[in-house]
Amino acid sequence: MNQHLELAVSTVVFALRPHPDAERPTLWLPLVRRIREPFRGRWALPGGPLEDHHDLAASARETLKATTGLEPRHLEQLYAFGDVDRSPQTDHRVVSIVYWALVRPDEDADAHHGQNVRWFPADETLARHEDGTAPLAFDHGVILRYAVQRLRAKITYSPIAHAFLPEEFPLTRLREVYEAILGRDLDPSNFRRQVLAQGSVESTGRRMTGTHHRPPVLYRSAPNRSRYTLTIEENP
Amino acid sequence: MNQHLELAVSTVVFALRPHPDAERPTLWLPLVRRIREPFRGRWALPGGPLEDHHDLAASARETLKATTGLEPRHLEQLYAFGDVDRSPQTDHRVVSIVYWALVRPDEDADAHHGQNVRWFPADETLARHEDGTAPLAFDHGVILRYAVQRLRAKITYSPIAHAFLPEEFPLTRLREVYEAILGRDLDPSNFRRQVLAQGSVESTGRRMTGTHHRPPVLYRSAPNRSRYTLTIEENP
Repeated sequence: MNQHLELAVSTVVFALRPHPDAERPTLWLPLVRRIREPFRGRWALPGGPLEDHHDLAASARETLKATTGLEPRHLEQLYAFGDVDRSPQTDHRVVSIVYWALVRPDEDADAHHGQNVRWFPADETLARHEDGTAPLAFDHGVILRYAVQRLRAKITYSPIAHAFLPEEFPLTRLREVYEAILGRDLDPSNFRRQVLAQGSVESTGRRMTGTHHRPPVLYRSAPNRSRYTLTIEENP
Repeated sequence: MNQHLELAVSTVVFALRPHPDAERPTLWLPLVRRIREPFRGRWALPGGPLEDHHDLAASARETLKATTGLEPRHLEQLYAFGDVDRSPQTDHRVVSIVYWALVRPDEDADAHHGQNVRWFPADETLARHEDGTAPLAFDHGVILRYAVQRLRAKITYSPIAHAFLPEEFPLTRLREVYEAILGRDLDPSNFRRQVLAQGSVESTGRRMTGTHHRPPVLYRSAPNRSRYTLTIEENP
């Protein structure tokens, strides 16, 4: 092999924070400003070269902690990106193994901001990448688009949306997670009916404390569900 | 970095062929006998180092064609395996990006067998790996186990089972694919009812030709389904 091959590990980190123009929760992600060529000055996903003594996920965790202060429990591999021409340096090929992390509110409280680290709403970042106003470095726009699409698909067949919530939550909070990820409003009573029919949450028997006139019931993830949606018969 | 880092692309290729002891279809995969250390003489997944001029999927396709003669349309990335100690050579680290290919019967007809390439039933291969009778090279037993589990999960939320079938098929054939992947029998009338309710197949309006007394209706994949199972409300 004549080309220098580098293996990098990067992470798309999603947290739900209030939309900048409205109260409703929306997807945000942290980006890191590149201080070197190529793409100096552009924003990029947090990441770095795979180090000798690190497994892949450990490498993702290390970078995340260093750049954002976050140690999210929900971290999983998303996809490996390795097209021949994804780095502009022709003598240098970078294959990136990309993880994604979903941040719970209690974890997000630990996030810190560095000089070259900033959080952005995901939809705005994609829009500004795609209209050319603020293109991301490398193929990170493609990666972000892929991550958003995977998240949208995956909430329909897995309880992954729960990763954005504390252990116990009212159903309204779960609906807001779905609305933030899907980018549209859902009918509250239909949503409640469908989620309860599906069996992915169970009541804790307790209600929220606070100033509510009628405090809502708290739910939690139902344990030991090997499948989220049941489309074929189960073992008897 | 002091370690030599190698990037490999390997593929788990699944085809449905008759079970060795019975008529029913079962999952088979091709393995390649290693002719060099480490793990000389053991069976391994087809694969090889990523070459300079190849994208990741192109590298998987190239190895597959060279070792098995197969050019399956259904090829997708499965997972990247990169634990620090997955190769026994301490000065040498291999990160493998693993694809999986699902082979249709017409594609499988082109499979050739080389001296060091052989097809095995997947369940028997895993059993003989796990009881130590015939361990696979490297962590390829772990990879194969992961691929079988992912396939079992994915047939419940995507039409991926159709990748094992020709364009048009009777529902019995589709049930046999599910049975082969799940490793258990399904009730024929329940299966028919559930698949038709789900809407992932549509009738062609034609029947199989041949010697059947009552030739079964042929179905095909229903087009343009963005979701396989519907668990939340659709846009109006």
